[in-house]
Amino acid sequence: MWRELAPIGRHAAGGGYRRYAWSPADVDCRAWFQWQAEARGLAYEVDRNGNQWAWLGDPGAGDAVVTGSHLDSVPDGGAFDGPLGVVSSFAALDELRARGAAPTRPVAVVNFADEEGARFGLACVGSRLAAGQLTVAQAHELRDADGVSLPQAMERGGQDPESIGPDPERLARIGAFVELHIEQGRALADPGSIPRTAAGDGPARAADRAGGHPVGVASAIWPHGRWRFDFRGEANHAGTTRIADRRDPMLAYAAAVLAARDHAARAGALATFGKVGVEPGGVNAIASLVRGWLDSRAPDEATLAAVVAGIERAAAERAELDGVELRVTRESFTPVVEFTHGLRDRLADLLGRDGVPAPVLPTGAGHDAGILSVSVPTAMLFVRNPTGVSHSPAEFAAEDDCLAGVTALADVLEGLACR
Amino acid sequence: MWRELAPIGRHAAGGGYRRYAWSPADVDCRAWFQWQAEARGLAYEVDRNGNQWAWLGDPGAGDAVVTGSHLDSVPDGGAFDGPLGVVSSFAALDELRARGAAPTRPVAVVNFADEEGARFGLACVGSRLAAGQLTVAQAHELRDADGVSLPQAMERGGQDPESIGPDPERLARIGAFVELHIEQGRALADPGSIPRTAAGDGPARAADRAGGHPVGVASAIWPHGRWRFDFRGEANHAGTTRIADRRDPMLAYAAAVLAARDHAARAGALATFGKVGVEPGGVNAIASLVRGWLDSRAPDEATLAAVVAGIERAAAERAELDGVELRVTRESFTPVVEFTHGLRDRLADLLGRDGVPAPVLPTGAGHDAGILSVSVPTAMLFVRNPTGVSHSPAEFAAEDDCLAGVTALADVLEGLACR
Repeated sequence: MWRELAPIGRHAAGGGYRRYAWSPADVDCRAWFQWQAEARGLAYEVDRNGNQWAWLGDPGAGDAVVTGSHLDSVPDGGAFDGPLGVVSSFAALDELRARGAAPTRPVAVVNFADEEGARFGLACVGSRLAAGQLTVAQAHELRDADGVSLPQAMERGGQDPESIGPDPERLARIGAFVELHIEQGRALADPGSIPRTAAGDGPARAADRAGGHPVGVASAIWPHGRWRFDFRGEANHAGTTRIADRRDPMLAYAAAVLAARDHAARAGALATFGKVGVEPGGVNAIASLVRGWLDSRAPDEATLAAVVAGIERAAAERAELDGVELRVTRESFTPVVEFTHGLRDRLADLLGRDGVPAPVLPTGAGHDAGILSVSVPTAMLFVRNPTGVSHSPAEFAAEDDCLAGVTALADVLEGLACR
Repeated sequence: MWRELAPIGRHAAGGGYRRYAWSPADVDCRAWFQWQAEARGLAYEVDRNGNQWAWLGDPGAGDAVVTGSHLDSVPDGGAFDGPLGVVSSFAALDELRARGAAPTRPVAVVNFADEEGARFGLACVGSRLAAGQLTVAQAHELRDADGVSLPQAMERGGQDPESIGPDPERLARIGAFVELHIEQGRALADPGSIPRTAAGDGPARAADRAGGHPVGVASAIWPHGRWRFDFRGEANHAGTTRIADRRDPMLAYAAAVLAARDHAARAGALATFGKVGVEPGGVNAIASLVRGWLDSRAPDEATLAAVVAGIERAAAERAELDGVELRVTRESFTPVVEFTHGLRDRLADLLGRDGVPAPVLPTGAGHDAGILSVSVPTAMLFVRNPTGVSHSPAEFAAEDDCLAGVTALADVLEGLACR
C-alpha cells in the first residue's frame, strides 16, 4: 500500500509532503483510499463532511468498531503522520482475515478530511463538523491563503459542500473508535522522557518500566490552542527613519517569541511561534504589520491560560514601548481530552506482554480521536518514533514497529469486534 | 503628468505602489516616460542596461547636465520616491523653456531601471551596470522570488538583455548629474533632527539655522548594506517535542531583531529586520529555517562594521544555546558616498536665500546618484517630507514644496547649463 501512496504530494526538493485538504494531492490520496476499500470488497462511502468510510459488515447495525486516521499533511510533513493509521487499519483487516477471525460487530476504516488544518488554519475540520464542534456558518468562513473558501475547495475536490453539518446518527452507530498514530515524541523510544501530566500520571509510569515498547496507548491529549498576535506599527524607510521616529512591530514580535519559550519552560508547557507574516516585507522597509501565530499546550487548562497570558503581557509591554498596537485573537482551542478509561485500560491489557500492560502516555498533539472522544468511546495507539521528530520528513518508524502496530491494531479489533 | 502616472501599479487595498522592475506596472511607467519625452520633442533613447534618456541638445556633444531619478517602487511604496525626481525633471525643462533660457550644454532627463531592488534583492541595478559596479555575470545570477532571472524579466519587459554591461562612453559624456528626491526623513521639516555624521557635519548645521526649508542639498550618503541571516534548526511538531529536544531557529532570530535595535541605538546608527521567511511555516510546526534580512547604515564604515558584528555576535550566542546553525551572508554593501564638494556648494549657494545657503544634509538611503558619484560629478536635492515617512503610502510632499523643488531644479539647470 505504501508504494502507491508514497509519491503523492511529495515535494521534490525537501522530500516532505504537501497534502493540503482538498488539493489535487489530497484528492489523489482519497482516490487511493477508495481503491483500497473496493479492492477488499468493503462498502465504500463518503459522509456529508467528506470523511471516507470503508465498511466490513452492516454500517447500520450499530455498535461498530471504527479505526483509521487521516491522509492530509502539514507543509513539508513526514510520510507517517496520518497515513500510518489508515494503512495500518487496512493491513489490520487483512490480518484479521488471515487469522480467520470473524467480526460479530461491524468494523470500518475511516479517513477524516482536513485533520491538519494546514490550509484553512483550523485542525480536524472533518471530525469537528461531524461532532457538531464546528458550525456550518463557521466552516463557511474558513479561507485559505489564496482566499479560497472551504466550500469552494471541497467543490473543486469533488465533494458537494451543500450537505456539511453535524452527523449525530452516524456517530451514534460507533461503539468504539481506535486511532493508530505515529508517536510525535520520544516517550516510547526513551520512556524517561514522558512529560509530567495531571491526567494519566499513574499509567504513564508503566512506560517507564516497559523501556522502549514499540506500541503504546494514549491516556490524554493536553489542552491546546492557537493564538494570532497582530502587531501593528508604521511602515517606513529602514535607511532614513530615526530610531525615535520608528514604530517597528518586529521588536514586539521578537519579544513575544522569547517570552513564549521562557514561560513554557517555567510551566512545563509548550509554546511555539512557527509561522509569521510581515507587511510590506521589504528588506529596506520597516514593517507596518507583523502577524505571528502562537501554538501552546500544557498539562492542564489553568497552566495553559497562565502561559498564554504571560506571553501576551510580555508582548504588550514591548509593543507599548515602541508605539505598536497588539491584538491577540484566539483562533482555536481544544480542552483537555481524557480518553475513556475502560477502553484505554482494556487496550493496555490486550497489548501487554508477560502480564505487564502496554505503556500508557499523554500527548500534546490534537487528533480526530480527541474530537470524537466527546461523542464516542475513543482510544489511541502510538507507534514508536525513534527520532521523536514529527511534522517533518525526518519523522520515522521502523518497519518492525509498523508491523507491531498492525498486529496490535488487529489484536484490538479482534478483541473488541470478534468476541 | 501626475494624473497619468498616479494609477499605474497602485494596489487597491492599501493605496501603496507595487511597481517592481520590469513588471507590467513598471513597463507602463516606462511607456509614460517615453510619451513625456516625445511630447516635448526630446530625443528618446534606451541604453544597453534599460535606463531611459530624454535629450535636449546633442547627446554626443559631451559635458551634459543630466537630471532624473527612477520610477520603480518598493512593495506598497509611496507615490513620490523616484517619480517626484522624474516628474520634476520634465517640469523643470518646461520651466526653463518658459523662462526662455537656452542651454549651452546638452541636458537630459533619465529614468534609471530597477533602483529599489524590490524584485531582485539588489538596489540600483541599472546605474550599477552602467557604472561597472555590477558585472554581467552577477546580473545574470539575479532571480526574483518566482525564480525569474533578471535577463528573463528584462526580455518580458521588452528590453533586450543581451547587451547589458558597463557603459563608460555614455557616463563620460555627463558633466554633472543632479537627482531630485523626496526627503526620507524629517531633517528639512524639523532641522534639529539631522543625525550626526562624520561626513558633512559642518554644512548640516546650516539646516539648523535655515529652519524648515522646502529644498535641501545632499552632503553624503551613509555607508549601508544588506545581510542575510540564515538560522537553521530542525522542523518538528510544536505540540509534542519537549523543549530539551528542540532546535528552534525562531529564538535566535528574535534575539537578532532585539540586538539590532540595541546596537544601532547605542552607535547612532540604523539596523532593521523588515523581511523574514520561515520554513516550513506551519502554525503547529517548529521552524527548520528562519531567514531574516538585516538592513544597516551608519555615519561611517567603521561604525557600520561594529554594529553588524555586534548583532551577529548576539545572534550566534543565542543560536548556540539552541543548537541552531547561523550563517550570515553580506548580500550588498555600498561604501560612504560624499558628493562632489564643488557641485554641492554651488547648488547650496544657487538655492540659498538672502545670502544664506540652502541646507545641506546627509541621508541614510542609497540612490542612483550615489552609484554615479564614483564616475561623474553628482549632487542631490531633497524636497521636504513633513511626515518623514518613506517607502509607505504615508510618504508625502506638499504641492507648494513640489513646486519649490521644480523651481530649484530649474535654477540648477539654468545655472549649470545655460551660462
